[in-house]
Amino acid sequence: MYSVNKDRVNFLIQGLAQFGKNEEGKGITRLAYSEDDRTAQNWLLEQIADLNLEITEDAVGNVFMLRKGEDETLPPVAMGSHLDTVIQGGAYDGMTGVVGALEIMQMLKDEKLTRGLLTIVFRAEESARFNNATMGSKLMAGKATVEKLSNGTRKGDISFPEALKAWGCDPEKASEAIKQPGCFDSFWEIHIEQGKVLEETGEQIGIVKSIAAPTRFKMFITGTADHSGATPMGFRHDALVSAAKLILAVEKAATDEKEHGTVATVGVIEIEPGSVNVVPGKATLFVDLRGIDNDSIARALASIEKAMEDVAASDGVEITRQILTQDKPVGLDQNLVSILDDICKADGVKYRIMPSGAGHDAMHMASLVPTCMVFVPCKGGISHNPAEFAKIEDIAKGIDIMAQAVYKRAK
Amino acid sequence: MYSVNKDRVNFLIQGLAQFGKNEEGKGITRLAYSEDDRTAQNWLLEQIADLNLEITEDAVGNVFMLRKGEDETLPPVAMGSHLDTVIQGGAYDGMTGVVGALEIMQMLKDEKLTRGLLTIVFRAEESARFNNATMGSKLMAGKATVEKLSNGTRKGDISFPEALKAWGCDPEKASEAIKQPGCFDSFWEIHIEQGKVLEETGEQIGIVKSIAAPTRFKMFITGTADHSGATPMGFRHDALVSAAKLILAVEKAATDEKEHGTVATVGVIEIEPGSVNVVPGKATLFVDLRGIDNDSIARALASIEKAMEDVAASDGVEITRQILTQDKPVGLDQNLVSILDDICKADGVKYRIMPSGAGHDAMHMASLVPTCMVFVPCKGGISHNPAEFAKIEDIAKGIDIMAQAVYKRAK
Repeated sequence: MYSVNKDRVNFLIQGLAQFGKNEEGKGITRLAYSEDDRTAQNWLLEQIADLNLEITEDAVGNVFMLRKGEDETLPPVAMGSHLDTVIQGGAYDGMTGVVGALEIMQMLKDEKLTRGLLTIVFRAEESARFNNATMGSKLMAGKATVEKLSNGTRKGDISFPEALKAWGCDPEKASEAIKQPGCFDSFWEIHIEQGKVLEETGEQIGIVKSIAAPTRFKMFITGTADHSGATPMGFRHDALVSAAKLILAVEKAATDEKEHGTVATVGVIEIEPGSVNVVPGKATLFVDLRGIDNDSIARALASIEKAMEDVAASDGVEITRQILTQDKPVGLDQNLVSILDDICKADGVKYRIMPSGAGHDAMHMASLVPTCMVFVPCKGGISHNPAEFAKIEDIAKGIDIMAQAVYKRAK
Repeated sequence: MYSVNKDRVNFLIQGLAQFGKNEEGKGITRLAYSEDDRTAQNWLLEQIADLNLEITEDAVGNVFMLRKGEDETLPPVAMGSHLDTVIQGGAYDGMTGVVGALEIMQMLKDEKLTRGLLTIVFRAEESARFNNATMGSKLMAGKATVEKLSNGTRKGDISFPEALKAWGCDPEKASEAIKQPGCFDSFWEIHIEQGKVLEETGEQIGIVKSIAAPTRFKMFITGTADHSGATPMGFRHDALVSAAKLILAVEKAATDEKEHGTVATVGVIEIEPGSVNVVPGKATLFVDLRGIDNDSIARALASIEKAMEDVAASDGVEITRQILTQDKPVGLDQNLVSILDDICKADGVKYRIMPSGAGHDAMHMASLVPTCMVFVPCKGGISHNPAEFAKIEDIAKGIDIMAQAVYKRAK
């Protein structure tokens, strides 16, 4: 096995960062199924042409890059991540996993392997475009349908089925993308931590044993639009004032569950009519609630529901809720965790076995095949932000550790 | 003097309502200086062609429709209002005043008049497009410059100078629109109340003695954009959570001054990046604060400033403020109020002398010439809303009362 080529890894990560790049300081906006998503992927495929991989695309646009093994009857060892970003995102979230997987294929290219090696590019891991996350892997795991994922169209954008068509896929045939349990030997994903734990403890590797999963819902507040000058205080049903109370209630619900690792965020707010001289008549909030403890998540949700009732009653507004996704936290494969644990011990690297606060495509792969993840530290824990940064030394260490594990499974 | 032709008035109001009409139930969006603003005005001018008025436009697009008087050395009696609407607005705010003024010209068309009669269509009374209100009348009164009014461009829209150019005006020549004190004999505006007072008291006419003026400002909150799943509660600087506290502080500041008639509204909120899985890093709030009591307005402003300091300190975010407009409440002409008072008494109509909570073009005309306004009731006090409605009988009564006053000044 060759050692990690840091220059090659860095070249691919920085090269991908040119696609969807915003003006200075505003990071990268490369939304799923966009033209930038396509051109970034095409550029990457050109760069790894020397690997002579067999490249296929499934019915929803997930891409598979296969190096066949000696025994083609055995399922391959799979790796991968995603190339799409949030709005004004960074260069490392997702790309580290795709580039890392391809680097492992370079490192092992001259090794004789019994099993094949597969790198997967999952489509639409980020919810930035369609308000649903890990869409490609969820469809692949048969956990959702295109219809179910079509509930989150953004103002001024096309719907998910329309985006599939624009990508060249037939939404009617999406179920052909579903894979069966045992389709791979195992699935491995390297990712930046997107938190501050590794940086603060000075550890270089995180072995992920469980993944928190998001519950996402919209809250719709309906008050009364009125003239801002001629409507006395006390005569108003201001939807934005009620929304502000709910934003604080969401933050309190999660803060009360802080010790269990539960978090909640209102990341999107839309109001109508949105004019400086009109009391807002309608407000919509998108809430993202996550944790690794089901009971804690349920308590936070109940607390938010209580606030909805209280605010509706006190403010004389109507508040309804629509659940978009409600995923369960996922435990990863204990056997794969042990393999990584042994490799880290032998290597002498500082590491920890930890949960993931963020969701990943790996959580859906875990329902099909034994799955594990490797985290590397990122600066300040910052992610989904132009300032997202991970040191090439840390990324290389993560690739090196995962390469040893993958080799062990494939050889 | 002919009596009011209700059918003609209704025809013009309903006819104007067709321009910028949204889908069912979403009212009218006819933004200032837009194509719809232009076509609505052109349609109106065609309808009143029989009056043979001398029509001119000033350097910022305000339109003047003049019937000359016997003595052309005397300044005319001026009336008017506006044709632009808010986003998803109604059919009566502004249009009642323009159509009412033109109806008075119809009623007096066969009377011999010493002074001329002038109907003015002021451009951009609503702040919906450029986040500044009464732009046309403010420029006419020399109270602002195009440069000063160019601070409120909305996302995705062109700037005010660009809109002036698109309308056919040269922004460099805007100062040519400035009028001098005494340019008219007097200015009169009929308007729906946009409040609930007349409806609740059962009075048909409001004689406006003063106009509350808006103080408008933006608050900019800068926190830190972070991954919504991997950033624990307590490690966040969520700009939207801080914004929510400020929205409630704005509402409290005005509610504490309720007895003085002060009101405050956050009508616009913008956040960045606005993605369901990112803790918001930036938020911008547009605040509209109004009253008829300078001391009360100042106390409310001080209370909001205190909240800005408190929230910045408690949440570890940066909060800055930018004042967009800061107008003083305006007293209208006592002599004109008396004329209307006498007419109402003689007529036997139920009326009241009252302040206006909303701002109007009349408040800028008041700095040039004696000015007064007539209010008519509107249903539920609702305005800036598709449900805005005023009875034709009430509008006709307002026109009738104002026609008598205007005739008295012009004859």
